[in-house]
Amino acid sequence: MTTRRVTGLKDVARAAGVSVTTVSRLLNGSLDLPFETKKRISDAIRDLNYQPNPHARRLSRGRSETIGLVVPDIANPFFATLVAAVEEEADTRGLAVSLYATLNRAGREVAYLQLIERNHVDGLIFVTNHPDDGQLATLINRTGKVVIADEDVPGAQAPKLFCDNELGGALAGRHLAEFGHRDVLFVGGPQAMISSRRRSNGLERTLRDAFGEDIRLLKYAGDYTVAFGRQAAKRFIEEGRPATAIFASSDEIAIGMIEVFRDQGVSIPDDVSVIGFDDVGPLHLFGPPMTAIRQPVRAIGGRALSLLLETNWQGKQALVEELLPVEIVVRKSVAPPAKR
Amino acid sequence: MTTRRVTGLKDVARAAGVSVTTVSRLLNGSLDLPFETKKRISDAIRDLNYQPNPHARRLSRGRSETIGLVVPDIANPFFATLVAAVEEEADTRGLAVSLYATLNRAGREVAYLQLIERNHVDGLIFVTNHPDDGQLATLINRTGKVVIADEDVPGAQAPKLFCDNELGGALAGRHLAEFGHRDVLFVGGPQAMISSRRRSNGLERTLRDAFGEDIRLLKYAGDYTVAFGRQAAKRFIEEGRPATAIFASSDEIAIGMIEVFRDQGVSIPDDVSVIGFDDVGPLHLFGPPMTAIRQPVRAIGGRALSLLLETNWQGKQALVEELLPVEIVVRKSVAPPAKR
Repeated sequence: MTTRRVTGLKDVARAAGVSVTTVSRLLNGSLDLPFETKKRISDAIRDLNYQPNPHARRLSRGRSETIGLVVPDIANPFFATLVAAVEEEADTRGLAVSLYATLNRAGREVAYLQLIERNHVDGLIFVTNHPDDGQLATLINRTGKVVIADEDVPGAQAPKLFCDNELGGALAGRHLAEFGHRDVLFVGGPQAMISSRRRSNGLERTLRDAFGEDIRLLKYAGDYTVAFGRQAAKRFIEEGRPATAIFASSDEIAIGMIEVFRDQGVSIPDDVSVIGFDDVGPLHLFGPPMTAIRQPVRAIGGRALSLLLETNWQGKQALVEELLPVEIVVRKSVAPPAKR
Repeated sequence: MTTRRVTGLKDVARAAGVSVTTVSRLLNGSLDLPFETKKRISDAIRDLNYQPNPHARRLSRGRSETIGLVVPDIANPFFATLVAAVEEEADTRGLAVSLYATLNRAGREVAYLQLIERNHVDGLIFVTNHPDDGQLATLINRTGKVVIADEDVPGAQAPKLFCDNELGGALAGRHLAEFGHRDVLFVGGPQAMISSRRRSNGLERTLRDAFGEDIRLLKYAGDYTVAFGRQAAKRFIEEGRPATAIFASSDEIAIGMIEVFRDQGVSIPDDVSVIGFDDVGPLHLFGPPMTAIRQPVRAIGGRALSLLLETNWQGKQALVEELLPVEIVVRKSVAPPAKR
């Protein structure tokens, strides 16, 4: 790879007869200009082969400065929003992001982790959505320069960033307790994952704080998917509605459950109260508007990138686990327990 | 430019009663099947006159391993779903996808288009969300190996793949006409973009078919964003509700409008009927469930990748514009015009 003189904004501005600021603002979209002026600038850009992006400039100089971001599934709005947050943070720092979707398959996760070893990216933000059998942790420990976000990979020696799942469970539990719910169904992700365990713990603790031993906490464990939400709702109905309130621990699960309840004529909150988790989708427009624990998704994305850039990867790392706070957004899907 | 409907792997798969992956793997030799199944597939290929392009097969097995996908904004569920579809299709073909988010800025779009020239990717699927001033078209024509999806870049000599926007507008118009709406507000994206123009044309045509000159079609033009939806709803209220029905031409716009209507006590469909476009988000759970035109988002993503692989980039290209059909999903947000 050879180094060469790179065309800069100044060259473009001079050729087009405008100021550097004008070119810069046109390119970042903060300024509109008369057609003739725009054409002079775009002609200059073309003639000079100017690359108006730090990523492209760095590429042309042979350095990557590209961050990799590995997520399970981009179609899930939670991950999509997380990705967008990392993109925006990277953009303000002049870094490029390469995004890899694992479709939640271990084989793809391993392949993408190996990108670092091959120097395709300078560091990775890694998000998984299923329990690890030890393979991911081993690879992460060998690779280094990985920040684990949203869900843990137990045993991985890496900076970790999660939302405060326990607090989320506690906020849900306190809200349900205030309405008098002692019989609660927790519909969670895989039990081996911290998101599920901690949310369930927080829920149980606050219900016990309110009612002592006089509670009944039921748990259905599955995936964080609409399909599992549907399954869970069907099982809940088949089992004769064994709880007065449900804590559905992701938007996707809640959506699946609400679909089935609508079809089967189970009314929220008259027949059963429901509280969700994530609050990324338009839950405020649902009928009824859904009460939910809101994840700080954008903050998680932004902070994950800072952690990747600010960690001293040369030194022996302190094993930091950082938690970002969640909040409860109260709407209309929780009411006092239905009379049986 | 000609519009045609091309037989694809999907058609073959549907006719043979198997998955697209099965057909794809049979054709590239990575899968063997029982005789009966193979016969069903080869009959379908013959009956539909499907031509599995040898060039595509070579590309999919050969040196070409990474496809670039450029989208405006991953946090928008429409683009997130499109990305996921391309990822899945690429996965079945053993290709990797590099994803680039432009944040809808021309500078970033240009930089990413240049990745092809630098051989960082073997081809690009390009999705923009704002009108081009000519710069993108110039670059695409110089670069080649670009498939334009979802929204046009006028003047670009590339295979183009859109949903049937005109049909979508027509389906919306027919549905509103059936309920007796003659005063309709079209809330669209930028007027310079084909999505907006064609949807609006389809709407107008069917309203005229139903009522002749006795219609009033009002238009607000802005961005495909929640923020613009909110603005449009406020303006609609300030102007004294100058229509009995609204065609909101994206999920994002509809969400912004519904938010404001809820806050201001404007009831859907009692005070105003609303029909949406995209139907990617959970509109079926809204209160009331939203009637909408459904885009074939996953099909667009999958087909865009096929086009990239099946186009003979060496030859002089026929300028193909392919349209994928949309459908109307009738729910509860349209009713007869409110009495004034």
